[in-house]
Amino acid sequence: MRIVIDAMGSDRHPVPDVEGAVLAARELGAHDRLILVGDQARIAQELNKHDTADLPIEVVHASQHVDMHDNPTQTARQKPDSSMLVAMKLVRDGQADAVVTAGNTGAALTLATLHTLQRIRGVRRPALTSLLRVENNQLVVMADLGANPDAQPEWMFQFGVMGSLYAQHVLGQTRPRVALLSNGEEEGKGNQVVRQSAALFANSNLNFIGNVEPKEVLQGAADVVVTDGFVGNVMLKTMEAVGEAFFRVMRRELLRNPLRILGGFLISPVLRKIYKQVDPFEIGGAPLLGVNGVVIIGHGRTNAKGIKNAIAQARRAVEGNLIEAIRQGMARYIAQYSSPAPAKPRRRYLARRRHKPIKA
Amino acid sequence: MRIVIDAMGSDRHPVPDVEGAVLAARELGAHDRLILVGDQARIAQELNKHDTADLPIEVVHASQHVDMHDNPTQTARQKPDSSMLVAMKLVRDGQADAVVTAGNTGAALTLATLHTLQRIRGVRRPALTSLLRVENNQLVVMADLGANPDAQPEWMFQFGVMGSLYAQHVLGQTRPRVALLSNGEEEGKGNQVVRQSAALFANSNLNFIGNVEPKEVLQGAADVVVTDGFVGNVMLKTMEAVGEAFFRVMRRELLRNPLRILGGFLISPVLRKIYKQVDPFEIGGAPLLGVNGVVIIGHGRTNAKGIKNAIAQARRAVEGNLIEAIRQGMARYIAQYSSPAPAKPRRRYLARRRHKPIKA
Repeated sequence: MRIVIDAMGSDRHPVPDVEGAVLAARELGAHDRLILVGDQARIAQELNKHDTADLPIEVVHASQHVDMHDNPTQTARQKPDSSMLVAMKLVRDGQADAVVTAGNTGAALTLATLHTLQRIRGVRRPALTSLLRVENNQLVVMADLGANPDAQPEWMFQFGVMGSLYAQHVLGQTRPRVALLSNGEEEGKGNQVVRQSAALFANSNLNFIGNVEPKEVLQGAADVVVTDGFVGNVMLKTMEAVGEAFFRVMRRELLRNPLRILGGFLISPVLRKIYKQVDPFEIGGAPLLGVNGVVIIGHGRTNAKGIKNAIAQARRAVEGNLIEAIRQGMARYIAQYSSPAPAKPRRRYLARRRHKPIKA
Repeated sequence: MRIVIDAMGSDRHPVPDVEGAVLAARELGAHDRLILVGDQARIAQELNKHDTADLPIEVVHASQHVDMHDNPTQTARQKPDSSMLVAMKLVRDGQADAVVTAGNTGAALTLATLHTLQRIRGVRRPALTSLLRVENNQLVVMADLGANPDAQPEWMFQFGVMGSLYAQHVLGQTRPRVALLSNGEEEGKGNQVVRQSAALFANSNLNFIGNVEPKEVLQGAADVVVTDGFVGNVMLKTMEAVGEAFFRVMRRELLRNPLRILGGFLISPVLRKIYKQVDPFEIGGAPLLGVNGVVIIGHGRTNAKGIKNAIAQARRAVEGNLIEAIRQGMARYIAQYSSPAPAKPRRRYLARRRHKPIKA
């Protein structure tokens, strides 16, 4: 297996990106390779800080990198040699099996969807997902987390289909429970897109369990939680914000007097355990579902552990043969539903594909 | 001042509803009165548990009550003598200045808007709000929290106008900072309704500061946070859910061994402080903005403290002359904007009003 890492992705690139790759490489088997893409000199400088002898790490040079201020729709043209684009091309061209980036999420979405990997046939819109660790260490797949702020019911349904396949093939759940995030559990609750999506889910062969509220999500009532990109993003960021606020107040208050410091010391295993639960870098990144390749997108503020865990996620997705599972799932979807996605890609994709065929 | 309390509102009615009123009555001055509405016998039974001699509490009988399973749009017809409806009629008829209920939120919204108090002239849609206590004890007004799952930009703008008036007249802020909840701070971020609303806010004389993410909300970056009812509801419930999950894990883990129990004891003031921050009953309830009367809606699971605090909120709204402020604000709004709300109420309201004039 070959996993390519955008070494210039994170806010503090290439430091955590390279260190994360080094940490991951130490855990890899003999047949697995990591490919770091980015400024060769700066990557070499970082690699030199670590003992990388015998580690299965390669470097591919890219002279540019996407940053947070780049307009996602223009980055392919403006930065044709960006590390993110070069990394994705390696996957498109079959030279790598998966890509990990902690860069600009919008750019990653655009570069993957429109410029390199393209959508899997039948997929209306790719979905950014997140894995939440909830009660009893259960992992929950949430989609969409921001790729589609205004989602249509059919897209939402497809998020559920892809999320369910992810839960099956990567997380090993046999019959994932799929739910819609809503403002009430009762049938009929929700905004318009939720109510219309519910009808599609109810008539499908997914294991649809209805609406869930945020509380049920955190209690692990569902394995796959479907939401539009705006609501999903707000929910995810609210969870992060509450977690951060909690630890900020905790830290400030615990340092107020010696008895509290002692108390804090005694309960530190508890605090660490809770922190692990809310720490976004514990999981590492969010798979982008619906494109012809494994793409894991990490948080810009990630650290080395986050990158390492994102690489581990990429490995599981490749091992679980996720892309093939989604291709087959979508083919069944097209055969089954009366309103299939267009069978042929739009013309401009077609034109591009003639020159650069996508490897299956 | 006379505040009427729906004694049959909360899930465990009339226990917390009556006890909350008793607690509030003990703090009231000689000229203030509380009116409990509901089953006279059951209220009397509850009142007997407390020392209510000399407390300014009256009881008004209502033979029915709205429960969580009632369809909001049908409850006025099906339960014409419900405690909630009777309570609101007292406000409509000038026999009380404000109403507090912990009952079915949808029913409260419908009964207030369509059957008793009616919308303030110019108001497109009333908004459910919530007061969040954030960093440095600052209070933030959030609207809408669920009355309008699919909001239109003009409604959103009006939520901002009313929220801003609430922050000024009830919370005493001089120039409230108004923001839109979004998935990114940058201009242009958001879903369609957020982007379209932003244009309305930017061209208004509100102190509009742009988009805020959940993190900024919790840091107190804005005084008024505007969102549609679906997103607001999901954010509020996520905050509650994370807070609950945190304390659940904390409690479980702290009891695991004696050292941790000791540690927990030493930091208990810290935990109490954090709990107070996330405890929804610390604030008590959410004002319904945009109707001709002060309506405070509490959480169904509320306790006596929650009801007491909701009553305190109702008092502050009456003291701040909130309704008159919103009436004047809306009159200015109608005069100012090219797309005014209909000057005349719809016909069926007009017909009803001929028989039961609304007291100004």
